[in-house]
Parts: sequence; C-alpha cells; structure tokens
Amino acid sequence: MAVIPLLADMHSRWKRVALLESTLGLLSWDEQVMMPSGGQSWRGEQFAYLASLLHGELVSPGFSETLSELERSNLTEPNKLASLKEARRRQSRAVKIPVSMVEELARVCSQAQQAWALARKQSDFELFLPHFEKIILLKREEADAVGWQGHPYNALLDEYEPGMDCLQLDILFGELQGPLSLLVSQARDLAGNKKSEQPTGNFPIELQKIFGESGARAVGFRFDAGRLDTSTHPFCSGIGSGDCRITSRYQTDGFLEGFFGVLHEAGHGLYEQGLPEGCRAEPWCQSASLGIHESQSRLWENLVGRSGAFWEHFYPIARAIFGSSLDCWPLERIQSCVHAVRPGFIRVEADETTYNLHIVLRYRIEKGLLDGTIPVRDLREAWNCLFQELFGIQVPDDRNGCLQDIHWSGGGIGYFPTYTLGNLYSAQLMRAAKRDLGDLEEDFRHGNFARLLCWLREKVHRVGRTLSAQEICQQATGAPLSCGPLLDHLKAVALN
Amino acid sequence: MAVIPLLADMHSRWKRVALLESTLGLLSWDEQVMMPSGGQSWRGEQFAYLASLLHGELVSPGFSETLSELERSNLTEPNKLASLKEARRRQSRAVKIPVSMVEELARVCSQAQQAWALARKQSDFELFLPHFEKIILLKREEADAVGWQGHPYNALLDEYEPGMDCLQLDILFGELQGPLSLLVSQARDLAGNKKSEQPTGNFPIELQKIFGESGARAVGFRFDAGRLDTSTHPFCSGIGSGDCRITSRYQTDGFLEGFFGVLHEAGHGLYEQGLPEGCRAEPWCQSASLGIHESQSRLWENLVGRSGAFWEHFYPIARAIFGSSLDCWPLERIQSCVHAVRPGFIRVEADETTYNLHIVLRYRIEKGLLDGTIPVRDLREAWNCLFQELFGIQVPDDRNGCLQDIHWSGGGIGYFPTYTLGNLYSAQLMRAAKRDLGDLEEDFRHGNFARLLCWLREKVHRVGRTLSAQEICQQATGAPLSCGPLLDHLKAVALN
Repeated sequence: MAVIPLLADMHSRWKRVALLESTLGLLSWDEQVMMPSGGQSWRGEQFAYLASLLHGELVSPGFSETLSELERSNLTEPNKLASLKEARRRQSRAVKIPVSMVEELARVCSQAQQAWALARKQSDFELFLPHFEKIILLKREEADAVGWQGHPYNALLDEYEPGMDCLQLDILFGELQGPLSLLVSQARDLAGNKKSEQPTGNFPIELQKIFGESGARAVGFRFDAGRLDTSTHPFCSGIGSGDCRITSRYQTDGFLEGFFGVLHEAGHGLYEQGLPEGCRAEPWCQSASLGIHESQSRLWENLVGRSGAFWEHFYPIARAIFGSSLDCWPLERIQSCVHAVRPGFIRVEADETTYNLHIVLRYRIEKGLLDGTIPVRDLREAWNCLFQELFGIQVPDDRNGCLQDIHWSGGGIGYFPTYTLGNLYSAQLMRAAKRDLGDLEEDFRHGNFARLLCWLREKVHRVGRTLSAQEICQQATGAPLSCGPLLDHLKAVALN
Repeated sequence: MAVIPLLADMHSRWKRVALLESTLGLLSWDEQVMMPSGGQSWRGEQFAYLASLLHGELVSPGFSETLSELERSNLTEPNKLASLKEARRRQSRAVKIPVSMVEELARVCSQAQQAWALARKQSDFELFLPHFEKIILLKREEADAVGWQGHPYNALLDEYEPGMDCLQLDILFGELQGPLSLLVSQARDLAGNKKSEQPTGNFPIELQKIFGESGARAVGFRFDAGRLDTSTHPFCSGIGSGDCRITSRYQTDGFLEGFFGVLHEAGHGLYEQGLPEGCRAEPWCQSASLGIHESQSRLWENLVGRSGAFWEHFYPIARAIFGSSLDCWPLERIQSCVHAVRPGFIRVEADETTYNLHIVLRYRIEKGLLDGTIPVRDLREAWNCLFQELFGIQVPDDRNGCLQDIHWSGGGIGYFPTYTLGNLYSAQLMRAAKRDLGDLEEDFRHGNFARLLCWLREKVHRVGRTLSAQEICQQATGAPLSCGPLLDHLKAVALN
C-alpha cells in the first residue's frame, strides 16, 4: 500500500486519540476548577467511558497494521518518523497492558485514594498499607507486561520519560545527593539565617491574581489562547490547540507562593502554546517528555522568576499593587528570601535546593518497592531512615513523611524523577541560552523576556517530539544532561 | 431472550448516549462561558467527533434489535415503558436521517451562521437568503426522511415537543392571537404609560451577581449541584447528574434584566435538579419536553418573580445591595414596571405579554416556509406584513425584523413554539398549584418558595418522561392545555 494513505490513516486515528485525550483534559480541568461537588460521581463515569474509547482506538488491530506497514516503508522525513515512533510507543503500551489490569488498577486506586486521605489525616501508614501493597503488586505486573531490561522500574519510567532508565538516573541522582546534602547542612548551620523569612502581611487574593496575571502576561503567556484560574493544586492543562489553561493557589498571608505558582505553570503553558501549530493531530507535535515539560516550568519559576534582575522589574509592580503591605520588605529583602534554603519535611513546600533531595529519596524508595528490596510494610522505616541520611533531621510522623504525596495512591510510580530531571534540564538550558544570547539580566531588568522565549521556542518548543529529551538537551546545549549546571546555580544562590 | 438482560442492554447503551451527550454539554458550556477564543477550531473538531460517536451508538443495529425484542415482550411498568418509547423515538429519528444529511446540514449551517451575523450587522436579508434557502430545503428533506402526517412541520416539532402538532398549535395560537393583539394595542393607547420605565442608574455587575445568586438560592437552586456564571446568551445546561449550570448576563445601567435572567434559568435548573435521581442513565429520567422545561423557567421568572408579593420580600434585599441607586424606585414602582407592556421589535427584549405574539409570528412563518406557501425569498415581506398585523407597527429594517434571531441560521426550525407552550403550561400549572396549596402570596411575601417547589417536584419534576407534556398538564391541572389561564393572567397584570 502506498505511504500517503497509510500516513493519512495513522493521522486520522491519532486525531481521534487526541480529540478524546483533550476532552478528558477538559473534564479534568473542569472537575478541579469549576465542577460543583454534586457532579463527582457522574464525572467519574464520563472519565471511565471516554478512557475506554481512547483505549479502544489505541488497541484497534487496524492501527497496529497501519503502523507495521509504515515501519516496512522507507519513511525518511524526521517529523513522520517521529510520529510513527510515538504512535507505536503508545499503541504498543496499550496493547501489552490488558484491559482487565487497567480496570483492576483503577478500582484499587479509587479505594486507595480514599484510604490514603484518611491515613494521612490520622497520620497512620498502617491504614494505607494493604492498599499500597495491592498497588505495588499491580505495578510490578504492569512492568512485566510492558517488558523491561535492567530493572522493572524502567518500564514505568518510560511512560513519563521515554529513553531514560535507572542506569542514568542512578548516576545523575548519585552525583546530586552528596553536594545537595552538604548545601542543606551548611544552610542549616548558618547561624541566624534571616533569609528563611517570607513576606507576611495581608495580601488580598484578588490583588494576588492581578499580580500573577501580570507576571504570566509579561513572560509571554497568551490569554487569547489560555486562561489562569484557581485550584487546590496548581496545574497546567493543554485542552486543545489554542487553548491552554493554568491555575495557581493563593493564601492571604503571603504572596510569593501564589506568584511562583503562576510563573511555574505559565512556564508549562509557554511550552504548550509553543508546540508546532495547526497539526495537533500528528503524534510528533507533542511535548518531548515530562522532564522537558518540567524544565520549562522550573526555568521560568526558578531561573528567571527568582533572579535579582527579575525582581528589579517586578518589585515596583508589586508595590503598586500591594501598597504598604510591602513597607517592611524592600527589594533587597525579597531578592534574598526567594533563594533561602529551608530544609523541611514537605516536598511541595520545599525550596529549589532541598526539593531535589526529596526526589532522590522518592526515587530510591520507588525502586526498592518495585524490585522488592524494600517490602511495602517497611516503607515507613525506609522513608524515615533515608530522610535522616539525606536531610539530617528526623521525620516526626507519617503525615510529614511517607504519606504526604498523592502520587502513590493513584498508582503514579516512576513519575517523581521527572521533577528533578526538569530542574537539571532547566539549568543546563539556561546556561546555554546565556551563552547564545549574552546578557539576559539586562533583559529581565526591563521586563523583556522575548529573546529568551524565542530561544526556547526554537530549541525546545517547536521541536515537538522529533527529538528525545536527551537529544534536545544535546542539540541545544552541546552536551549530554549533567548535574554541573544545576549544582553550580544552587551553590551560587543558596549560601549567599 | 429474557426481559432483564434486554433491559440491561438498553440501559447500558443509553448510558453511553447520556455520557456522550453530557460531555457535549460540558464542551458547549465551556465554549460559551470559559474557553479562550483560540480554542474555537479544536472545539469544533471535538464537537463533531463526539457527535459522530453519539450517532453511532443510536444507529447501531444491536440497539434496534434490543428495542424490538423489548417491544415484543410484555413490559408493563410505566418507567420501563416510557424508557422504551423514548429510546425508540431517538433511535428511530437517528436511523431515518442519513449521516450525509446531518453532515450537509452542519456544513451549511456553519456557513449560514457567519452569513447571518454579517447580514444582521448590515441589516440586509439578501445576504442571508441563499444560505437560508439551502437550510429550508434540507429541513424539508429531513421532515420527509423522518416522515409526517398532516404537515411536514410536525416532523420537526416532534424533536422538541413530542406529541404536539400543527393542528393543536393552530388552535392554541389562534386563540391567543386576537386577545394578545388587543392587549398590546390597548397598552399602546394608554396615554402617558409611566409603567414602561425601567430603573436606571449605576448597578455594578458584581453586586448584580450577588443579588442574582440570592434569588436563585431563595427559590431553591442548589449550588452544591450547580453553578451560576455569565455568558452572552443566558442558558441552562444539565452537565450530568448533580451538576446543572445556569448563566445570566448583566448591564450596569439596570438590574432587572439580569435578575429575571437568573430567575428564568434557575427555573430550568430547578427542573433539572428535580429530575429522578441516581438513574440518569435511564431514558425516562429526562425532562418531558422543551415546552414543559420552558414552563418551569417562565413560572419562576414571570408568575413568581414578577408577583407583587415576591418583591415585598426581595425589595429590601435589593435596597441593601444597591443602596441609593434605588432611591427613586420605591417598591410600588418596581412592582408596577415589571409587568409593563412595551411593544417592540425584538423578541428577546419583549415583555411577558407581547412575547407570545413574537412566537405566533415565527410559527406562522416557519410553517409557510416549510410547506412552500411562503417562498424563502419573500421572507422579509411576509415578516413585515405579519408584524404589522399582529403588533400594529411597522418594522424599520431587517435587523429589527427577520434577521434578529440566531435560531434559523443554525437550522432550528420548529423550536420557537415551545416558548409559548411553556408560557401556557406555566400559567395553567400555577393556577392548579394555587388551587391545591391555597395562598402562595403569603409564602412569597416571606421568601418561602418551598411549598410551590415541592408541588412542582411531585407534579412535574419527578415524573420525568413517564408522561407526555400534555399528560403532565392533564394530571396536574385536571384539564388539557388551554389558553385561558395565560390570557387571564396577562389581562390581570398588563393593564393595571
């Protein structure tokens, strides 16, 4: 069969996949931002049904046949090859995992999430244990069904970060662990560390939203192709071509958390808005990996948004909006506190330095749970022991320890490493951007983020999935991913 | 085959239909209330794909076979019989209308809506004419495909108001026309009609939203199972069990239009929230017809919301919210102005009396267009001539005449009569409620709407689709639908 109709068939099937996925995306955005509580149960049914339609598309025999024929043809165009590879990756994962396993996992996780919520409330891991045992068992079965080499964890990781494996993660995270632990202990030892303070006062949420929107707009987030709303957990969701939605959350006694939340999600949003246009229906027009996605959010949140020059531009805007609430917080004090190292127990509250130690811990535990070297019933002990080793402080209870994250109760094993991969990619990309563009500080000082965004559009966003995460890194920075740039950045800012 | 598995099969198929319809409902709500403009084109693709899946479910041969077997069985339970009847009605309509016709109509309407928007802007019917000719041709084909007796219009009407036909409409609308025209001309002749004024001033939209929400809450709209938002055209959409969303629109120079918009949509919302619970997946658990749906919105907007007693309760609330903006508008002036007859050219701005004349006009024109007695090219003349006859005033241009409504450009022929049917049902239901419950004025005066809502829940909402619209009317009021109650109400309020 000729290649053109085969490509057309692949694209029309993929378009249905994309239409269903984006509709699922809207159902989820709406659930988190808009839906009244009474809609919960019906929304669950909508999810389950649309997910089953999506699965049906992926496992349809015709899809596999088309892909096989295309694989036998001599495609050479990079976009088409990348599309074929991605389509096969999704199709093959869907075929290998039996529907019964997907349904069983959904059932188990639905109960596990309720049990986890209660267990966390009561700070008692034992309540969650039987559910988590079932989840780990099912995730092992999933890894075996997908197939793996080296370590079963690789099969799970591949869903989020294609091309990454434990071998590389062990090296990268191994290089991070020592220097980060040292930084954290040095920061803790700094007597009278004033930097750990955050501005407190009364910051009305309506004003914070205005400030947040001004930040998102300034870095280039397009509001004619997106929205900014409020939700319990900040997130970014591409609802479809030309429609990308971000959220943040706000507390009245401080404004930095909400603002950095906006910058973080706007970073994700800039990536989504910069993906190849007008052909969402082709598999190559996607983000390269979750790690690269996270690199974009971290770059704008941490490397741009926490820079001194950034605040030279934004401080006057914050003063104009918040007025006398900032009287005790001159520019210099803000610039200093945004980098403060504050070792704590909770990942989502962590500063940019300690954050990565939280991820190293979770990675080591997930690997152990999956290969059985950490029995699930020993999770609490393993967690607390490792936390002591990495942070030098003792976990007081399960709520501040192994029960803090929602990921595991939802079956999300293998996801955490993408957060630190994002930090690593972001630092290496930023170093390369400065190499190529020269003085970006001067740009930021004048609220000009267009040159940086342009560079990211070219090197990362418009590439879509034609390159792997590692290839994007190599092409944009001239070197494979390494820990140097991130460690250099953190050393420079953490102890000043 | 045994009846139980057949019923289970019908229900599981219907549930998929309901899940897809409610997802389409969310896509539409989101488009009108939340979506950034950039999402337009992808949203169109989502609509088209999900609509094709929905059509596929309805026309699947297995569905028809299951229904046939159930029809041969001896079902006796009213709910199950009603479900079977409704499932067959939908299935049979979907099978009779070829996909090619549906797609052609969608294509033609998509172009027609753009042409209509331009034509209305330029107030030039000729620009819309060629598109509307195609639409009328296709709607005639649709009527023939569905099949009809008496008049092709019946085939289109049946989609919105099952059981209603031209024979009955001709009688009802014939009875309305004379007395309404008389009322309108009497109102116009009343020298110095002060009632036609509306409160003007500065009514900030945020305050109007608070007032609107207090109104919706007071009549019983549940916000844990619903939302109230803002959109260009007010609407109500049941997104799923436990999730019903209403909208209104606000202008800063007056507050009544926005408030009555909320009450109107809240009336629809009360019906949706009162439908049989927990079994949305069964065909009988739906509204009986668009006419009955509209009766609920009109009842709360006009018969409750415009009553003197209602304003005795709500006027102090309005004063507390709007303050001195109401200084020149004491209670009595509000009570009087909400019933003012103000003959005008635009349907959506019409008062409760003239409104029905706008519908009579559209009904007579639609019938003529469909049976060919009014050639499409003569629409403008037919409209203007009939308007003169009914309202006694001359239409100045097409924008204020035959181009004012969006319905026709979207292929919505046969929909308009349900508005006046809703008014007729509402007046007859209200009279019966007063017969059964005694003095409701005293309830309203104290902001107590629970007894009336309870009565509607029992007589209308919880009935679902086990009775037809006419049967609901007969059972609740003891008489078939007639014009008496509405005309009595309008005569009582319009000329006071």
